[in-house]
Amino acid sequence: MSLDDRALDVLFRQARTHSAFTPEPVDDDTLRRLYDLLKWGPTAANSCPARFVFVKSREAKERLRPALAPGNVDKTMAAPVTAIVAYDLEFYEQLPRLYPHADARSWYAGKSDEHIRSNAMRSGTLQGAYLIIAARALGLDCGPMGGFDHAKVDAAFFPHGKVRSNFLCNLGHGDPARLHPRNPRLDFDEACRIE
Amino acid sequence: MSLDDRALDVLFRQARTHSAFTPEPVDDDTLRRLYDLLKWGPTAANSCPARFVFVKSREAKERLRPALAPGNVDKTMAAPVTAIVAYDLEFYEQLPRLYPHADARSWYAGKSDEHIRSNAMRSGTLQGAYLIIAARALGLDCGPMGGFDHAKVDAAFFPHGKVRSNFLCNLGHGDPARLHPRNPRLDFDEACRIE
Repeated sequence: MSLDDRALDVLFRQARTHSAFTPEPVDDDTLRRLYDLLKWGPTAANSCPARFVFVKSREAKERLRPALAPGNVDKTMAAPVTAIVAYDLEFYEQLPRLYPHADARSWYAGKSDEHIRSNAMRSGTLQGAYLIIAARALGLDCGPMGGFDHAKVDAAFFPHGKVRSNFLCNLGHGDPARLHPRNPRLDFDEACRIE
Repeated sequence: MSLDDRALDVLFRQARTHSAFTPEPVDDDTLRRLYDLLKWGPTAANSCPARFVFVKSREAKERLRPALAPGNVDKTMAAPVTAIVAYDLEFYEQLPRLYPHADARSWYAGKSDEHIRSNAMRSGTLQGAYLIIAARALGLDCGPMGGFDHAKVDAAFFPHGKVRSNFLCNLGHGDPARLHPRNPRLDFDEACRIE
């Protein structure tokens, strides 16, 4: 059941990080289809800690602007959608429903902040990668970014509760004419070994 | 350039976490093809901090055994391959080659351990998710796990240098007859909002 070469190109081999997008919008139905794919990716104890804000409106983009690193402002303000990939530090409250065959809530509730945050970050980041790949599978292009002030994003978008920003990802239809040459990757023998 | 329904099923909608695999082996060439897909996924400043050990031999599996949580021993010892997804805390030494158009090494070298570790974990975990999805794209099934003693794995597989384990992922051809019913996921409106 492996995928064909064209699919592997779309997902990995020819996919690029985009800074410039065409004016073609991304409609809300596409964002719902995107979540309905990425949600199936595996997380620890099915904890699904990621939370996503899809920033589309001018008003919401302006709330995001002051948090962006200078080099990320123009491209993010111009992108059709900017996804805030975040994680909920109270994810464990959903575990009785998400992982009903064990008392998984007790593995986190009342444990150290570091233990809770570490799971939220690890599984929430996996879900952020599922978002990137699922977006490509739906014909979208991505521009993920780490250059922003996390505290400012959290204050502007998650003022209540325990949701924290992880990374940002612009979404839209990339303009291939404005790509730079691709950076190299490590060879197999630099990054991997078989034992 | 969106993928067809069958591909979306293979990657996300029908893909499952497997504990039981058929005896069909995973050859080394497939592991190389797996890396040659996942390596293209985006990371912060193309830092590519993930390192992968593909544990296949009986000897290497026995070195892994004492680190496994009791519930993960039998399935991991029986799996054709167990990938140790790890990250290199000295990833920044590769940045002059991986990200040549800026002095990205200086963004990490000499900075706080927390700053370095946080990037290694975030981008290294993204790469772990790319491994899961790329494996599915090649027709493999995955069984990712967090239940193990990180210090024991690091001592057994990364005794030198600054590579640290992140999570484990069994790889092979899953036995669909031994799957349990699927756990639920959060609805769109529980995990997402559009602003």
